Amino acid sequence: MATPKITAVGSVGLDTIITPSGKREELLGGSVVHFAVSASFLTKVGIVGVAGADFPEEHILFMKDRKIDLEGLELVENGKTFRWTGSYLEDFNMAKTHCTDLNVFADFQPEIPDDYKTSPIVFLANIAPALQLHVIDQMNETSYRICDTMNLWIDNTREELCKVFEAVNIAIMNDGEVRSFTGIDNLIKAGRRMLEYGMDYCVVKKGEHGAMAFGKNNFFTAVPAYPVDEVIDPTGAGDSFAGGFVGYIAEKGDHKPETIKKALRWGSVMGSFNVTDFSCDRFRDTKPEEIKARLVEFENMIG
Amino acid sequence: MATPKITAVGSVGLDTIITPSGKREELLGGSVVHFAVSASFLTKVGIVGVAGADFPEEHILFMKDRKIDLEGLELVENGKTFRWTGSYLEDFNMAKTHCTDLNVFADFQPEIPDDYKTSPIVFLANIAPALQLHVIDQMNETSYRICDTMNLWIDNTREELCKVFEAVNIAIMNDGEVRSFTGIDNLIKAGRRMLEYGMDYCVVKKGEHGAMAFGKNNFFTAVPAYPVDEVIDPTGAGDSFAGGFVGYIAEKGDHKPETIKKALRWGSVMGSFNVTDFSCDRFRDTKPEEIKARLVEFENMIG
Repeated sequence: MATPKITAVGSVGLDTIITPSGKREELLGGSVVHFAVSASFLTKVGIVGVAGADFPEEHILFMKDRKIDLEGLELVENGKTFRWTGSYLEDFNMAKTHCTDLNVFADFQPEIPDDYKTSPIVFLANIAPALQLHVIDQMNETSYRICDTMNLWIDNTREELCKVFEAVNIAIMNDGEVRSFTGIDNLIKAGRRMLEYGMDYCVVKKGEHGAMAFGKNNFFTAVPAYPVDEVIDPTGAGDSFAGGFVGYIAEKGDHKPETIKKALRWGSVMGSFNVTDFSCDRFRDTKPEEIKARLVEFENMIG
Repeated sequence: MATPKITAVGSVGLDTIITPSGKREELLGGSVVHFAVSASFLTKVGIVGVAGADFPEEHILFMKDRKIDLEGLELVENGKTFRWTGSYLEDFNMAKTHCTDLNVFADFQPEIPDDYKTSPIVFLANIAPALQLHVIDQMNETSYRICDTMNLWIDNTREELCKVFEAVNIAIMNDGEVRSFTGIDNLIKAGRRMLEYGMDYCVVKKGEHGAMAFGKNNFFTAVPAYPVDEVIDPTGAGDSFAGGFVGYIAEKGDHKPETIKKALRWGSVMGSFNVTDFSCDRFRDTKPEEIKARLVEFENMIG
């Protein structure tokens, strides 16, 4: 197999989602899945994750159809896939978790296939910082490192998370996580403070309010969100954003401030597709031309 | 006197403000003052408002120094100026009102000086819709009409407010007001819905998250906020935003979508100056070159 441009590591799951539009069960989900489906429209992605023997063949076929490299996806015999049930009944910005069954994900120890180790970019989706560090250890030193995280790790494993931040080039977080990690309410000050933890760039996602990026030498950029007038299911919006963002960087092949600016726009556009249907279903019938047209439309709106 | 490019009508007051930075009393305030001080960096503004005999001469001199036309500012003999006391101790996005003394503002009946009636633009700052309509009646029909409003009028005088929206070209509102007026939570849908009330454009201010504008034929644009890492006093930020926005339109002399896009950037920049000191004090020592440099910096950040 060829080395993918991005090696992405994270959860693979089956989600049950309740929104004002209804309830849907056993949907394809997980951070690395949402990330990879989105990034697959821009570049070649290989995923590292784990699922059980109950993981439906159709999901495998869908990801193969999207040209996602599945060499790193382990299917555990007799194991059950990670399941999550959540609802967004009062607020689309905050999921309420009803139930989490880690199943095979509880023992996840990411092993990077040899082909993947020289990927120019490694994306560490939201998994325990210790596992993120374990992935970094296996990757070639030249890989550009981009991570996500969540409040669970900020609250409980801050020391390891700090090691991750020191090791990565870019951290992608949401506004609440940046505020919580720094203890600073002003998002501009908080975003700048993140850089003191060692990363080159900190990207702050703000949902319907777009995203910002902070970098060295006082670099700052921001984009509004692409306007979406009907959100159906926000699950995976942040991972789809990351897929567009990291996918663009992978294709561009550099990490200059101008590249980061443009990558935020790709993130905003990919996130906007994801939220208009359950799971990553919106990407099943989305054509690359449609995505490019939306990027142009978005740039005209804001440019 | 020459006809000002903008005739602006609204409150003139003395504010007592409590923020985490401290308490300051009897500061120059009022919606039309914040608006005019900001717009005065871009164009010629005349204000229509009322104050009492106690209104400090230094405030008059400051506004004259900013070349603001004060022909429409009535000073009521033996009258007391409108006073407002508010705090921002928990949330910079929402003032807590401690005390409002309307004083001479209670009987405010805006009378437009003859010189002002042919202004190309009339800005109706946040006053009762009935007074906004009274101003529109006095202005030349060719004046381009831009209004602000607040929840008080949305909740209590909706019928008159609808007449204002039908009569104006642009309504400037904040996110909460647009949601409350339309009853729609999704801001994109809510902003589009506003256009059904008759205006050409609806501008939605989102504080630290920037601003958006909606127009006919599905026109949409958005800007992030200029990054401010230390907010001292947000009072008047929305009016300063409007000053930059309307001031740019006045100087450009048209209302094309491209002009609206650029005007949002001017709004964002002018609002960013206002919040970094109490009252409109930041504008006392701001040079026009400093503002132009920040606009260029901002366009580089987001462009």
